[in-house]
Amino acid sequence: MKLYDFSLAPNPRRVRMFLAEKGIEIPTQQVDIRDREQFGEAFLAINPHSVVPVLELDDGTRIGESVAICRYIEEQHPEPALMGSDAKEKAVIEMWNRRAEFEGFGAAAEAVRNSLPLFEDRGAPGVPGGVPQIPALVGRGQQSMGRFFDKLDKQLAENGYVAGDAFSIADITAFVAIEFGKRAEIEMPDSCPNVARWHEEMTARPSASA
Amino acid sequence: MKLYDFSLAPNPRRVRMFLAEKGIEIPTQQVDIRDREQFGEAFLAINPHSVVPVLELDDGTRIGESVAICRYIEEQHPEPALMGSDAKEKAVIEMWNRRAEFEGFGAAAEAVRNSLPLFEDRGAPGVPGGVPQIPALVGRGQQSMGRFFDKLDKQLAENGYVAGDAFSIADITAFVAIEFGKRAEIEMPDSCPNVARWHEEMTARPSASA
Repeated sequence: MKLYDFSLAPNPRRVRMFLAEKGIEIPTQQVDIRDREQFGEAFLAINPHSVVPVLELDDGTRIGESVAICRYIEEQHPEPALMGSDAKEKAVIEMWNRRAEFEGFGAAAEAVRNSLPLFEDRGAPGVPGGVPQIPALVGRGQQSMGRFFDKLDKQLAENGYVAGDAFSIADITAFVAIEFGKRAEIEMPDSCPNVARWHEEMTARPSASA
Repeated sequence: MKLYDFSLAPNPRRVRMFLAEKGIEIPTQQVDIRDREQFGEAFLAINPHSVVPVLELDDGTRIGESVAICRYIEEQHPEPALMGSDAKEKAVIEMWNRRAEFEGFGAAAEAVRNSLPLFEDRGAPGVPGGVPQIPALVGRGQQSMGRFFDKLDKQLAENGYVAGDAFSIADITAFVAIEFGKRAEIEMPDSCPNVARWHEEMTARPSASA
């Protein structure tokens, strides 16, 4: 196996954290998306969709999409379970992982991609011809992220982790979303002490530096 | 079990199609999101996130997020498998389902939510105070959907179904995304004969009218 990775990008980080929590090490190859390497001929042959991460299996199959990669790892290495052990756990974790993706990660991406000069003409990922930024999305993203912090705080007031009483992929997604949002100057609000407690615990996990 | 549903909304439709393909019937309760019933006290007690669908289990647990609901059903009723049978299948189906969601369904939602008068002040779902429409997102959504059609056509030139040679949840997501996009006058381009062939087959499945 081999992971096409970019150490500065948030989606590959989700996969690296997932692997670190599983205690799995696999070879990685950097694809410098700042330098548009994802649109070059060499990487197009790996992933015509021009995004990282991609997991290449030993039989040559290539899996894109962070959570699909995590799903493969989880199926091959079930312990520790990060996506649930029975039907109900799997569904509850998937529910919270999706909330963290759509309402947290998605909001951060909206604010970051539509404001930073680095993302000029990269309003959406994986488009060779570029996608113009839409400045109005910065405020919408910031506001969505504010609502996400509030929801997360309520959930973490009653639960140790995002999807309940055990660490899961939903914690990874929410943590990386918050870290990503900082690039658009979205900070944790003081009104969310439970998020602050949990965030401190996440930061202390060895996987946080994966 | 009971499904909180709204017959005119695309996300609940994904779940209804999934259930129909499994041959499962469960009681449903309509939540009229046109009339803001999702923000009313009764439904807030069911789902404080104010979105449908929600699956209520017999033990009272409530699962939100369409794919999380499908995951629960899949785990409880594995046949016919709609989310894959082994690690590789599960990962490939999840990859294509996510592409259909982010690049197809997401694009359609962008165009629909930011253009139709029905969605005035509903630029994003589940926000009681409302989210203003951003007109620039209509064009971005239409263009993203155009790219999605092209990708899908390439995939369907070489495969019977979206995620390979078997019908899966990825077909449901792509089909509902295309149907949803029609509300913003996004039609299948003539340049995508493979999508047209597949779309005809999807339309002919009994689950399409679920």
